[in-house]
Amino acid sequence: MLRNSSTAHGALRRASLSSAPTARLHSFPSSSASLPIIPPPRSSRAHSSFTSWNPHTTHSHRSRFLMTPLDPLDCEEQRPMSAQRGRPSFVPTPSVDLDDTSIPMRLRMIHHIKSLQSTICEALESLEPSGQKFKSSYYLRDASKGFGDSRVLQDGETFEKAGCNISVIKSTLSVPAVRQMRAERFDWWDGVSELPYFVAGCSLVVHPRNPHAPTIHFNYRYFEIQDPKDPNGEPKAWWFGGGTDLTPSYLYEDDARHFHGLYKEACDRHAAGYYARFKKWCDEYFYIPHRQESRGIGGIFFDDLSEGDPEAIFKFVRDCSNSYLPAYYPIVERRKDQPFTEEEKRWQQLRRGRYVEFNLVYDRGTKFGLAMKEPRTESILMSLPLTSRWEYEPEVGTIEGSREKKILDILKKPVEWA
Amino acid sequence: MLRNSSTAHGALRRASLSSAPTARLHSFPSSSASLPIIPPPRSSRAHSSFTSWNPHTTHSHRSRFLMTPLDPLDCEEQRPMSAQRGRPSFVPTPSVDLDDTSIPMRLRMIHHIKSLQSTICEALESLEPSGQKFKSSYYLRDASKGFGDSRVLQDGETFEKAGCNISVIKSTLSVPAVRQMRAERFDWWDGVSELPYFVAGCSLVVHPRNPHAPTIHFNYRYFEIQDPKDPNGEPKAWWFGGGTDLTPSYLYEDDARHFHGLYKEACDRHAAGYYARFKKWCDEYFYIPHRQESRGIGGIFFDDLSEGDPEAIFKFVRDCSNSYLPAYYPIVERRKDQPFTEEEKRWQQLRRGRYVEFNLVYDRGTKFGLAMKEPRTESILMSLPLTSRWEYEPEVGTIEGSREKKILDILKKPVEWA
Repeated sequence: MLRNSSTAHGALRRASLSSAPTARLHSFPSSSASLPIIPPPRSSRAHSSFTSWNPHTTHSHRSRFLMTPLDPLDCEEQRPMSAQRGRPSFVPTPSVDLDDTSIPMRLRMIHHIKSLQSTICEALESLEPSGQKFKSSYYLRDASKGFGDSRVLQDGETFEKAGCNISVIKSTLSVPAVRQMRAERFDWWDGVSELPYFVAGCSLVVHPRNPHAPTIHFNYRYFEIQDPKDPNGEPKAWWFGGGTDLTPSYLYEDDARHFHGLYKEACDRHAAGYYARFKKWCDEYFYIPHRQESRGIGGIFFDDLSEGDPEAIFKFVRDCSNSYLPAYYPIVERRKDQPFTEEEKRWQQLRRGRYVEFNLVYDRGTKFGLAMKEPRTESILMSLPLTSRWEYEPEVGTIEGSREKKILDILKKPVEWA
Repeated sequence: MLRNSSTAHGALRRASLSSAPTARLHSFPSSSASLPIIPPPRSSRAHSSFTSWNPHTTHSHRSRFLMTPLDPLDCEEQRPMSAQRGRPSFVPTPSVDLDDTSIPMRLRMIHHIKSLQSTICEALESLEPSGQKFKSSYYLRDASKGFGDSRVLQDGETFEKAGCNISVIKSTLSVPAVRQMRAERFDWWDGVSELPYFVAGCSLVVHPRNPHAPTIHFNYRYFEIQDPKDPNGEPKAWWFGGGTDLTPSYLYEDDARHFHGLYKEACDRHAAGYYARFKKWCDEYFYIPHRQESRGIGGIFFDDLSEGDPEAIFKFVRDCSNSYLPAYYPIVERRKDQPFTEEEKRWQQLRRGRYVEFNLVYDRGTKFGLAMKEPRTESILMSLPLTSRWEYEPEVGTIEGSREKKILDILKKPVEWA
């Protein structure tokens, strides 16, 4: 069998499940045209139809337990109350208290992304019946300039390709690089010195095999700039950036509302205007001008976030990044075994082509990464799908009333989902 | 069967031919490791092992016949003397005399690329046992701003995707666009007017299905700039650009020498230094910095060619573009039915990923096209392969002594083939 035909054969095998009565297939409505789409729940909290973990509730639990003596039973209860049996933990467990302001923000951000990465990889592995695990490539940058850890699960049964990277860099920004950044940050800069910087970030891209399960991406990072003349190396400027966005090949309104509803809640916990502002930013950022369509159905996106208290923003960034598993895990759990046809797989592959176009032509992170002096190309391009497809003027997507046309219409005109 | 698995299934079907005694399979050595690679011929004219048509010879024939009365037998002889039985014509037949200097260059270039496109599409179709033909999308640009004709053959048995476009544009260059161009051309420019321009070009990309048959690309174009104050619209600046380059997944030295040898001959017919100059330019242009490798094994590439006599350059451009079929056709003819393995197909798909990276991240034509106000995206991105693949840190290509490592080594250090 051809190695690169595993998609095709896997799909065939899975499509044949449509006639096999398994518990999972019967517990969720199918996507096929002859079966009804899951009706949106009547409650205003659209995602309540999912049994999912609420990061806010869990944070409260943890705080409570951290402040009282623990006994074994209490420890048991740290596991999210609402988690479905058999689901792994969705709660990162950093080895330092991330609210301890006596620990430098840099270090706390590193602890956060490390525990986030481990929790996510373990949770996603639990959705992989092949038993495949993430493979980790840990690397040190030259001359203590930082380190990275790229974890990739490739060619699995559930995931065609899933990657979760952390990256920590200490280096200097060239004069032209500083000039390209927001000037107001650098009113103290002499205009000729290279500026030391530090960045710690975690990024993730997951491309499931099933065309009914959406691709997801996130990236959260903390940036600091130092004054080269300051012997203490205190940050002179700092900001957080990040976001999480969803890219389905087929639209499931319930999934879209669950995802956006959860991120709206996360935003609302921190500031009233955040969701509206960062949802719009996301729609604008993930736009493909030459296709006149969005890459996906959005989510939240922000950059240069440095207004006010860094502790408050750090809490917000943690809450958003910790919302990834409750936002995405239940969707994949629901869609991964859904039967699909060869035409649906073809459409997914064409949509993957658009994903590649956005990432290689427009994504600032990719461009910044590839333009580095010694780019770690494998880590930067980990976001690309295992397989993709380009057809010249395909008819699919143009037929009125089709599900392919429906998602395209939404990509051409973003919808408010929460 | 999954539609997007046609590659895989086609490959399996073709791989199984290795045990089927067909005339074609026995007339060429196989690529598999257990069979010898075709030894390079001992003659200094390396491509002499191919029975191919020589455009130079044929030009002479045509001139002679055009100047003397024709009888039916003479007409017969217009067919290239060295063509193999069953091969289609490699000779474009424009409906005007391209050497007639009383016809404006613009018009002659249009005639040239139209006849070139037709000849090429017809010839490539003859290599397609599926019987599939190129589909033509002819389009007019708004307000007589030109026209285009995109011809694509997709998902065939020999060709995974083959596209040959002609494009004719009359428009104006914005002030920033003029400023980005070579200043010495515009010493008469007032610095504030938009400049009318004309461009006519033909571009081609062919991605065969068989991993032993190389991808090929060419692009030839003629550019004119007018002075907006000149009521006669005479060109104030003009240049030709173009090139042809080859991208194999597996190296066949004989193919590489045939291809480069033929382009060296074409160059040598016009100027002594052309081949060395344009081969180097090609190696430099088709370089992927973030992979530290070339896209392919080169060929020729030039831009801004406007030294001396436009008639001489037009002859050179015609000769180069007419050399495409003799350079490429025999290679595909030889490789298209060669047995291949699933691992070889996978390697080809990974190489296709690199092709996508170059075209979307670096290619100036793609970037220019996508940045246009109303880009014809389907035509611009026709160059992308039907399918491609990205793996994280694949082992293939790293193993000493393997054929995959061999081609990668050559892509990291260009070779002189002619």
